[in-house]
Amino acid sequence: MVGMRGAYGYNDNGNEGGVVVGGGEAEAEIAAMAVLHKVAAPPAQSTASKLKARVKETFFPDDPFRGFKGKPLTTKWVMAVQYLFPILDWVPSYSFSLFDLVAGLTIASLAIPQGISYAKLASLPPIIGLYSSFVPPMVYAVLGSSRDLAVGPVSIASLIMGSMLRQAVSPAAEPLLFLQLAFTSTFFAGLVQASLGILRLGFIIDFLSKATLVGFMAGAAIIVSLQQLKALLGIVHFTTEMGLVPVMASVIHHTKEWSWQTILMAVCFLVLLLTARHVSMKWPKLFWVSACAPLACVIVSTLLVFLFKAQKHGISIIGQLKCGLNRPSWDKLLFDPQYLGLTVKTGLVTGIISLTEGVAVGRTFASLKDYQVDGNKEMMAIGLMNIVGSCTSCYVTTGAFSRSAVNHNAGCKTAMSNVIMALTVMVTLLFLMPLFVYTPNVVLGAIIIAAVIGLIDLPAVYNIWKMDKMDFLVCLCAFAGVIFISVQQGLAIAVGISIFRVLLQITRPKMMIQGNIKGTDIYRNLHQYKDAQRVPGFLILTVEAPINFANTNYLNERIKRWIEEESSAGTKQSELHFVILDLSAVPAIDTSGISFLIDLKKSTEKHGLELILVNPTGEVMEKIQRANDAHGHFKSDSLYLTTGEAVASLSTFSKMTAP
Amino acid sequence: MVGMRGAYGYNDNGNEGGVVVGGGEAEAEIAAMAVLHKVAAPPAQSTASKLKARVKETFFPDDPFRGFKGKPLTTKWVMAVQYLFPILDWVPSYSFSLFDLVAGLTIASLAIPQGISYAKLASLPPIIGLYSSFVPPMVYAVLGSSRDLAVGPVSIASLIMGSMLRQAVSPAAEPLLFLQLAFTSTFFAGLVQASLGILRLGFIIDFLSKATLVGFMAGAAIIVSLQQLKALLGIVHFTTEMGLVPVMASVIHHTKEWSWQTILMAVCFLVLLLTARHVSMKWPKLFWVSACAPLACVIVSTLLVFLFKAQKHGISIIGQLKCGLNRPSWDKLLFDPQYLGLTVKTGLVTGIISLTEGVAVGRTFASLKDYQVDGNKEMMAIGLMNIVGSCTSCYVTTGAFSRSAVNHNAGCKTAMSNVIMALTVMVTLLFLMPLFVYTPNVVLGAIIIAAVIGLIDLPAVYNIWKMDKMDFLVCLCAFAGVIFISVQQGLAIAVGISIFRVLLQITRPKMMIQGNIKGTDIYRNLHQYKDAQRVPGFLILTVEAPINFANTNYLNERIKRWIEEESSAGTKQSELHFVILDLSAVPAIDTSGISFLIDLKKSTEKHGLELILVNPTGEVMEKIQRANDAHGHFKSDSLYLTTGEAVASLSTFSKMTAP
Repeated sequence: MVGMRGAYGYNDNGNEGGVVVGGGEAEAEIAAMAVLHKVAAPPAQSTASKLKARVKETFFPDDPFRGFKGKPLTTKWVMAVQYLFPILDWVPSYSFSLFDLVAGLTIASLAIPQGISYAKLASLPPIIGLYSSFVPPMVYAVLGSSRDLAVGPVSIASLIMGSMLRQAVSPAAEPLLFLQLAFTSTFFAGLVQASLGILRLGFIIDFLSKATLVGFMAGAAIIVSLQQLKALLGIVHFTTEMGLVPVMASVIHHTKEWSWQTILMAVCFLVLLLTARHVSMKWPKLFWVSACAPLACVIVSTLLVFLFKAQKHGISIIGQLKCGLNRPSWDKLLFDPQYLGLTVKTGLVTGIISLTEGVAVGRTFASLKDYQVDGNKEMMAIGLMNIVGSCTSCYVTTGAFSRSAVNHNAGCKTAMSNVIMALTVMVTLLFLMPLFVYTPNVVLGAIIIAAVIGLIDLPAVYNIWKMDKMDFLVCLCAFAGVIFISVQQGLAIAVGISIFRVLLQITRPKMMIQGNIKGTDIYRNLHQYKDAQRVPGFLILTVEAPINFANTNYLNERIKRWIEEESSAGTKQSELHFVILDLSAVPAIDTSGISFLIDLKKSTEKHGLELILVNPTGEVMEKIQRANDAHGHFKSDSLYLTTGEAVASLSTFSKMTAP
Repeated sequence: MVGMRGAYGYNDNGNEGGVVVGGGEAEAEIAAMAVLHKVAAPPAQSTASKLKARVKETFFPDDPFRGFKGKPLTTKWVMAVQYLFPILDWVPSYSFSLFDLVAGLTIASLAIPQGISYAKLASLPPIIGLYSSFVPPMVYAVLGSSRDLAVGPVSIASLIMGSMLRQAVSPAAEPLLFLQLAFTSTFFAGLVQASLGILRLGFIIDFLSKATLVGFMAGAAIIVSLQQLKALLGIVHFTTEMGLVPVMASVIHHTKEWSWQTILMAVCFLVLLLTARHVSMKWPKLFWVSACAPLACVIVSTLLVFLFKAQKHGISIIGQLKCGLNRPSWDKLLFDPQYLGLTVKTGLVTGIISLTEGVAVGRTFASLKDYQVDGNKEMMAIGLMNIVGSCTSCYVTTGAFSRSAVNHNAGCKTAMSNVIMALTVMVTLLFLMPLFVYTPNVVLGAIIIAAVIGLIDLPAVYNIWKMDKMDFLVCLCAFAGVIFISVQQGLAIAVGISIFRVLLQITRPKMMIQGNIKGTDIYRNLHQYKDAQRVPGFLILTVEAPINFANTNYLNERIKRWIEEESSAGTKQSELHFVILDLSAVPAIDTSGISFLIDLKKSTEKHGLELILVNPTGEVMEKIQRANDAHGHFKSDSLYLTTGEAVASLSTFSKMTAP
């Protein structure tokens, strides 16, 4: 079958080639008159069915229920339950794998110190970080469809939540209120995430482009690292602001508070952690080196403090932590109108940010292992996980990139590794908490810095610079905005620029003059193809954007100027007769666009020119037809299927009518 | 020349047609192997020169200085002065035309009653409306490039300014402060307008689409008419709110205040004015009927009130007006921080709204008379006019649609008609002001209603409904927003929806499966063209949008699903081998887009398929090449110039390699 069709395929091409090897001109002339392909409109559809199709494509592009078609009702029910609880996909046939155990223990050894550190980053009690590494992973194991995601608190969401809530309430002065606000924000974050998933508005996170994220992450990593200077230098009176300038001012202003013991410890552990990171990056098989380094550092530093009574020499320690599992916290959710605005806003920002990280991490590892992750379902899973979390003393969690990478490298097979991790954290919570009394804060700071340093992705920045200067600008604005203004505003600026850029592309669409590639009926951009040649008497233009309100004025002025230039430049022999507008690359048109086409038709007629439209696509053709029904501007003799056919037919015509 | 090229043109087509009449297959096969056109990248350009070209296309699409090239320096200077002062274009050769005199007097007879009415609409003293019809037209005559624009206060800008300023200050309680705020807002409006022109950001007003404007205008007309119920019914205690609901509630609540004398007068004059309007619409030659009707109504009603002493029977009158020309008002500009936010916001909104009206009116009449109006220059002219106006006791003015139409119909030739109008207003200001003492407010209300009724453009609404349901929704939202929420928020909602719609088009770009139109090498959308047929072994897809961060996830999932469906549906004979992605309609790509192409390439390879890219346009090709330099994903054998060539070449290849 391929062979047969293939013959047919190059048959066409053969004919095209035939021109080059030489063809009979007389026969060709007859053929030219005979073969003209009509522009068709798509089959008529009612407004309702068109609306339905559009809604489906917007909200259900993945058509999640296509497997359901034609199945008996009971099967449908089973499939629906499996759809909602992906755990049912793999648990019934699950046989315990050693890989999952190893992966689970490895990420637990990373999750415990990171949980404590990130909670401190959010100005929350350290134990909240451990609580958040226990319940949410269990929930995710039931609802989530990614096999590699390692769930827990993450640095950026912790940073943002802490900084936003601190603007209204001091965690030192009103610790209970601060905790209530954190749980309430987590609740709203979960609500936002689940709603985005249920309403299938997942594409909203797509507006955070890669360039935005690279710049934003790098900026956030630096802000987070700067915050650690408090712990690393042993400063007591540290600024509560986040920006680069106030933090550096505060550091320099308090040189007297610097403690050499703390700094020495900071440098040693930082070097250790970064070396471990470097080793694991160089030899991926040694992933466990960087995975276990934080826990090792915590153990060693705690022992050192304990042995040398270092807490009496200016090294600050975590102090007493209570044993026991998560307490219920639904009674701590605070819907007081005074703080409602703040918690909703904090929930929205942290929810979307952590969702972006979680979904991106899930997609990355899914494509590595070649399985599908349903974005909207993931959002529902992460959202429900946070709603449950907010009722069980957890704050915002998501799939963390660094821990998921360790999980993946450790060879996890299913979400069981999350369960193992949660159980390990549970054991810690029940029995091992007293061991953390002497853990110095400085080692937690070092762990955070070593973790976030990986968010500064210089090769990606270089790649963006090489690929696209505008993207680089977006990246730079996100970075500078985060560092100098604030985390949320930096993000808003970068998203704004990304969207403005898209709008600008539509406001100033690309228009090209096309020419004929010699010996073919192919027409291409004159600027790009040096062997394309102008066809005298014709101005062949392509527009590469939807024609709508945002660009009709521009298109109108630009085309008129081209026609003017052509008319004034042309000698009598090559006088301009036809303006061909190739609409192949115009996916849509609105009422302003149709008015523009009608205006252009009228104004070209005034100059004695004829406007020809080539290859309008479905929706555009439909609207041209509707405009035709009303006013009759575009008869079928001004519509052609290809530029080649239009030029051939029209130049035959003008040759025949020429004196 | 046309003839020769023509022959060349249909030569191509003849060959294409030749397929149908029959061609030698053996020769064709050889030709197919011989003729393959390479995809070219555009000539290399430095980043700086690309940036320069893009900036030029964004801000100077009209290339205003192209006439300057190659001229001697003195000529350049003369041209620059002429560019800044378009009056120099026509005054030196101006011979007085009777048409300008007639047009000037006609628009003056319209401008005087409208000026008084619109000033009342903005809660300003009536005389400010006349001042605003004197200085700004003179300034515009010097700076403006439209010959038909009749300058003066307009209804919508007056309404918005009044409603925004009333939110902060009561015009009855603090008349001087209110006046100061009005002048300051006018100053900022002018500043915004001139800046948009100087910074060449004129395209910002393009974001007000036709659908938005139609809905907005209709809503504003209704709001303005509702405000007139105070004058028409003779109500004394009227609400200060603007919405439909509070105004109707206020009208019904104060039935006791209705004065039958006022209502009788209102009905009579309204019928008269609407009849005059109808006559002029039906017979355009009688344009003067509706143009003079307002002044006639003012004269008749003033005489009636004077003769019958109607002011003593419940008919409210304007009262004493001072004679004399505009006083300087620069000392009244108020830059007090307390009101700065309000005046800047008011200036921004009224400035952009009145600019939109002015530029649209100028463009409409320019295209009727076939001359060019430079949008950015118009903005500078209107902006400077308002800055000068704010220093000479005028409030926001622009080119009014109704008066410009009368001006055009009266046969004006140059901006001299504006000068005549201004001189007539000057005479009125100097000598005729006492005559307005007995003019009843009810007739002013009737004049406003008769003027704004034309803003409700039902045929345009019907046309939008027929053309595009989404545009209709935008129109409806603008209308409902203005009527039920507020003028500014209605506008913001409509602009927001328009932009969201554009973004949605990019987030969910159109993708089509293409098929071959039998007997040609043309490939078109299977859905639109019933005679297009699938080519077995190939999946030919087109994407019709820039590929960027907002749609790569969607494209990725959608294409993978198509491949999956194809692979599972195909029998062994028609097994899928090649995925062709036609990039003709992809005008731009960003770094996310390039990553998507590389990912797609890898994942198709995993499924044993080959990804072929067809006809990438300039910018896209450039970036593909750069990605190639770095990673080498897209070798030249996976790039083709046309789908026809790709299919021909690849099916020959698979035929040859088939067992």
